[in-house]
Amino acid sequence: MTTIDLNCDMGESFGAYTIGDDAAMFELINTANIACGFHAGDPVVIRDTILAAKAKGVAIGAHPSFMDLYGFGRRRIYGEKPKDLEAQLIYQIAAVKGMSEALGWPITHVKTHGSLGNIAAEDPELAAICASAIKAVDPHLTFVTLPYSETMKAAEAAGLDVACEVFADRSYDDNGMLTSRQKEGSVIHDLKQSTDQVLSMVKEGFIPTVGGKKLPVEAATVCIHGDTPGAVAVARALRDALAQEGISFAPFKTPQV
Amino acid sequence: MTTIDLNCDMGESFGAYTIGDDAAMFELINTANIACGFHAGDPVVIRDTILAAKAKGVAIGAHPSFMDLYGFGRRRIYGEKPKDLEAQLIYQIAAVKGMSEALGWPITHVKTHGSLGNIAAEDPELAAICASAIKAVDPHLTFVTLPYSETMKAAEAAGLDVACEVFADRSYDDNGMLTSRQKEGSVIHDLKQSTDQVLSMVKEGFIPTVGGKKLPVEAATVCIHGDTPGAVAVARALRDALAQEGISFAPFKTPQV
Amino acid sequence: MTTIDLNCDMGESFGAYTIGDDAAMFELINTANIACGFHAGDPVVIRDTILAAKAKGVAIGAHPSFMDLYGFGRRRIYGEKPKDLEAQLIYQIAAVKGMSEALGWPITHVKTHGSLGNIAAEDPELAAICASAIKAVDPHLTFVTLPYSETMKAAEAAGLDVACEVFADRSYDDNGMLTSRQKEGSVIHDLKQSTDQVLSMVKEGFIPTVGGKKLPVEAATVCIHGDTPGAVAVARALRDALAQEGISFAPFKTPQV
Amino acid sequence: MTTIDLNCDMGESFGAYTIGDDAAMFELINTANIACGFHAGDPVVIRDTILAAKAKGVAIGAHPSFMDLYGFGRRRIYGEKPKDLEAQLIYQIAAVKGMSEALGWPITHVKTHGSLGNIAAEDPELAAICASAIKAVDPHLTFVTLPYSETMKAAEAAGLDVACEVFADRSYDDNGMLTSRQKEGSVIHDLKQSTDQVLSMVKEGFIPTVGGKKLPVEAATVCIHGDTPGAVAVARALRDALAQEGISFAPFKTPQV
Repeated sequence: MTTIDLNCDMGESFGAYTIGDDAAMFELINTANIACGFHAGDPVVIRDTILAAKAKGVAIGAHPSFMDLYGFGRRRIYGEKPKDLEAQLIYQIAAVKGMSEALGWPITHVKTHGSLGNIAAEDPELAAICASAIKAVDPHLTFVTLPYSETMKAAEAAGLDVACEVFADRSYDDNGMLTSRQKEGSVIHDLKQSTDQVLSMVKEGFIPTVGGKKLPVEAATVCIHGDTPGAVAVARALRDALAQEGISFAPFKTPQV
Repeated sequence: MTTIDLNCDMGESFGAYTIGDDAAMFELINTANIACGFHAGDPVVIRDTILAAKAKGVAIGAHPSFMDLYGFGRRRIYGEKPKDLEAQLIYQIAAVKGMSEALGWPITHVKTHGSLGNIAAEDPELAAICASAIKAVDPHLTFVTLPYSETMKAAEAAGLDVACEVFADRSYDDNGMLTSRQKEGSVIHDLKQSTDQVLSMVKEGFIPTVGGKKLPVEAATVCIHGDTPGAVAVARALRDALAQEGISFAPFKTPQV
Repeated sequence: MTTIDLNCDMGESFGAYTIGDDAAMFELINTANIACGFHAGDPVVIRDTILAAKAKGVAIGAHPSFMDLYGFGRRRIYGEKPKDLEAQLIYQIAAVKGMSEALGWPITHVKTHGSLGNIAAEDPELAAICASAIKAVDPHLTFVTLPYSETMKAAEAAGLDVACEVFADRSYDDNGMLTSRQKEGSVIHDLKQSTDQVLSMVKEGFIPTVGGKKLPVEAATVCIHGDTPGAVAVARALRDALAQEGISFAPFKTPQV
Repeated sequence: MTTIDLNCDMGESFGAYTIGDDAAMFELINTANIACGFHAGDPVVIRDTILAAKAKGVAIGAHPSFMDLYGFGRRRIYGEKPKDLEAQLIYQIAAVKGMSEALGWPITHVKTHGSLGNIAAEDPELAAICASAIKAVDPHLTFVTLPYSETMKAAEAAGLDVACEVFADRSYDDNGMLTSRQKEGSVIHDLKQSTDQVLSMVKEGFIPTVGGKKLPVEAATVCIHGDTPGAVAVARALRDALAQEGISFAPFKTPQV
């Protein structure tokens, strides 16, 4: 039986502000990436998210970002020294790791957020910084990266465990990159097509590309979007369709308690 | 030979903004309390402060605060649930602890900052929250508190190690509390008087009060102010005067590396 | 025919975060109090809120607060000089006033938010600061205050126009103050009771108190809550019930364009 | 007699943090560009800076920036819609304009800060946004721009008054742009050379370039740096040297009180 992990970015609320229906999503996912307070999240939200994950047996990781609450970590920010970004990552990962351990549900991994993740996926220097920040905090943390990305290479070069994240609702180009959102067909809205793409990646081990290639991939986890309208319904439909095909679900890595 | 620790709040700069002459102060102190990014400090400042402390053999601790950069943690903020303040403390302590371990110079203690510290010293509920936050992150961390405070009682009740902090430049009332800054004579400007007060507390084991009492105290560390004009010169004069009296200097607790 | 104004706090979203269903609420209200970026709101939200109000003919005002995004302006913050709070108020009112004029839909009034408003209502010094800040920006701005409050007295003493705000869903004590939320019966959930209370205040000119008194009031506007679950439905029901009783609706003051 | 204006960025302190020796600089300059609270400054600092300028007869303007306190407005931030940046500019200009009028010392101009200014100088779309934001708040405000920049062109296209700002301590390339700081000779450290460059620009009306060209310029104001070590001494030396050459000093535009 093939087993896969569904992961979702969680804990993105802040103060009086709520984003996403985390309670409903926790019923559907296996792994949660928790915002660390720089683009979203605050200590209270982080605590509540860790406790909710623990109650549901959902594995958790730190989801660090540029320091950019206003832009939700989606703006591209240039002009900081790489070593300074490394310090920002160490701070965020350490904060969530420490909270998770204090609450008895340790983080298993790190996944970078938004623009930081997008830039690092293409920039070897920033990718290496991300890997070294993770390693500095805890070399046993898994680095969740896109396949064929600079971050994956950097994680491997640093000796970190890598978990490849794939998408059900985004098409891939012939280099294994996500097709630009500017291009037609970049977002997959059809459930059948999404399900088939996941099955290819998870059961058969290849990414079907827009040019008709089959790129090998070891898919460890499927990204579920949490902050779009109807996110929960879309996630539930995908999960049900995959279950129909005989797929079972479990975290790609289990917390050590 | 009597040995004492001099501690100072450090790492209070933020982004382009600098407060205090940390480089000069590191020559004079034995223990640094590092701002955690909520009232002051940022990940880059925290990293640089930890590395400077390590280079000088200065012990370090986390110096958490209300979330209040604008007010430098000095405003009194009411209206949050105690458990939510606890989450904020755990986040801050965990962040600095994780960074300190990543940099090979682990923190030894926690000291609360500004209004948070002042309120907790008088409020048993908040004092207990501070103690439980420290314990949740690491029960081996020492809690630096004022003598005769609610925080000291809470630390002891929680089974934490306590280090009592005394002041060279503040007078004490007959309850062992710092005299209100509103009252005349609350701040000691005379070096001889400051030195004598420290010697009483450190060598003879009692706090001389404004009412003429001698309150027993186990002074572990003397607070040095870092952000006032002439702070470095004042600190150097006190250190020299204490050295003249045969006092030697060392951290009250040595980092485990 | 009796005419009344329904006002609601609007524009409280921030960056990627949304609070309230402003689009639906704009169909129901006559006056909007716009968050100024200190407890909620940002320049983009403020612009969009002004433009939406203009399109609907809804009058607008500035809704300044303590500088407290994390606490949504609901935490009580002490320790700032009154003149410094005045500067913060002037800044906020000026920013929204300038934007409103640039967009061709000038603000008509100011209403203080959250803890700032609550403290000022009881504290003559802070109330005077609020009034002087408004007057400093524009003496023609109306100050929306609670009846029998220090803010109302301060507004009158400063020569500002005052608009008294009353509540449909909160009971009043015999001093004309809102009953503490800690007490039973402080919040009115029954539509009939809410409607009757508004009719008393608007048509008959008195506040019915929990002790059975009838306190005279010149009610200019009724506060509609926007950030509670079901807020729009509650507002619509109240508006419909008032309309049934022959009440018509209009801004208490019309923008000068 | 030739008259020139010396301008300096002022009011860049924040909360407990101080940058620059504004008191000393106010003795030397004619025009102050006041940070608006987005990259630096807060309402209290803005008020104090306006009042100090008024006391000295120094003209003032708004100095808006990206929303970036941590990066002091020096980081390049991409990913916001131009119209949203416009809203941020309107907000900042309106806030400082309103405060300045409330304090009886109205702003005369706007100068963009840091990365926002640098990007706008080269990007026609952003330059047009800056001009339209200024015009939306008050079409009588002067736009202080670099000569030969996109901002200057946009200001003229929008019908705004333009004041050209020149540098004493930076060399110019043959296109009239500041030489990149990466290149040797970009910063002029020699007082005689700085003075001569200013005299060329102010008395003779041309910019001497590194390639030996003489580019025509109508220099309205000379930029004085305030946040570098020794800034006040450098400014005083330049002012004295220019006075020796018979230059007198006055704001390029006088506040209308």
